Amino acid sequence: MRTRFHEHLEQLADQLRAMCVRNREAIAMATDALLGADLELAERTIDYCAETVAMRDGAEHAAVTLLALEAPVAGELRRVVTALQLVDDLTRMSTLTEHIADTARRRHPADAVPEPVRNLVTHMGETAVDLADAAVDVLTTADPGDAADLDARDDTMDDLHRDLLAAILAEGWDNGTAAAVDVTLLGRYYERFADHAVEVGRRTLYMTTGRRDDALQLRER
Amino acid sequence: MRTRFHEHLEQLADQLRAMCVRNREAIAMATDALLGADLELAERTIDYCAETVAMRDGAEHAAVTLLALEAPVAGELRRVVTALQLVDDLTRMSTLTEHIADTARRRHPADAVPEPVRNLVTHMGETAVDLADAAVDVLTTADPGDAADLDARDDTMDDLHRDLLAAILAEGWDNGTAAAVDVTLLGRYYERFADHAVEVGRRTLYMTTGRRDDALQLRER
Repeated sequence: MRTRFHEHLEQLADQLRAMCVRNREAIAMATDALLGADLELAERTIDYCAETVAMRDGAEHAAVTLLALEAPVAGELRRVVTALQLVDDLTRMSTLTEHIADTARRRHPADAVPEPVRNLVTHMGETAVDLADAAVDVLTTADPGDAADLDARDDTMDDLHRDLLAAILAEGWDNGTAAAVDVTLLGRYYERFADHAVEVGRRTLYMTTGRRDDALQLRER
Repeated sequence: MRTRFHEHLEQLADQLRAMCVRNREAIAMATDALLGADLELAERTIDYCAETVAMRDGAEHAAVTLLALEAPVAGELRRVVTALQLVDDLTRMSTLTEHIADTARRRHPADAVPEPVRNLVTHMGETAVDLADAAVDVLTTADPGDAADLDARDDTMDDLHRDLLAAILAEGWDNGTAAAVDVTLLGRYYERFADHAVEVGRRTLYMTTGRRDDALQLRER
């Protein structure tokens, strides 16, 4: 009975990891579509993200089934409850990625990202991939070091986000209001994607250790 | 034993309702602070929202304790699991409200909302209060009619949000890029607040009926 419980818990963990791996793929695709003004890739990314979002129900169902059939307590209960919360973070990462791809789609054939901020958006895209990668690592290893690493990378994202807003607000911005609106929202999507990746790390750590590390306190943005 | 379970479940429902009532108060305060460029009210709203966010741990703890001690199944399990998810929606509503108040605080003594969009932001604020109010109703009655009402009000918010972006992008916008960035983000915060209020309605309905109404399908934004 308990062996089966652990098998099911492992399957649930695999589902979460699979969603996170897909988010890493998708954010790379979305950034490429955005910076390359690539309509076909943007549409493929949107479909791909929708498939990831559709994995939510299966993962939620698996978690609720575990609760119903096995009535876990203590550490095992914590793992299942945290898995339920992780499903939401991972789904949200997909939706935010879809928004980025959709911006590329709506602006096509024009570039949504004007020249002066292309470098910044490129770095935000790379940082987002790094964060999703690190979240996959934490989901696999539950290593506190990996989770701390996630936090450090999120600081990079915050710096880039600040620079991005500063660039839009700088004197020399002559790319118009429409581009300012697009880039403002894009910045928000990347930043929120990063926040959820960090949350995945924090929750995973809590799931396995039961401790909320003070250095990794939950931050809401 | 089961009576105690239901008592605890009622207490948990009360905590969720209390969070939602606070969100309704807070979004009204935040909008007043924003439109009145009222620094003192903005700061009071930020503190008030932080207190609501701090209620999360208590509600989560109550839900996990119910799972651990009572091992509920079927409809009762669904209620506890949904309560856990509702806590996240209600917390997120507080954080978004805090962002709105914080925009007023950062721009003080200037107005964050320029004249041409003041009416729209006023209406978005009123619609957000209506939505939070309706979410409180659904949490109280679990009435499908109330949940449908939430959906209709969310359509109003979507229309207002579209009009807001159109106003920023219109030819005559001469309020500068900084105001465009602020208003873009404010629009996003109100829209997401509304989405979470609708989610509260949908989840509550699912919690009590076990049916996901097709007309009220989960929409991710």
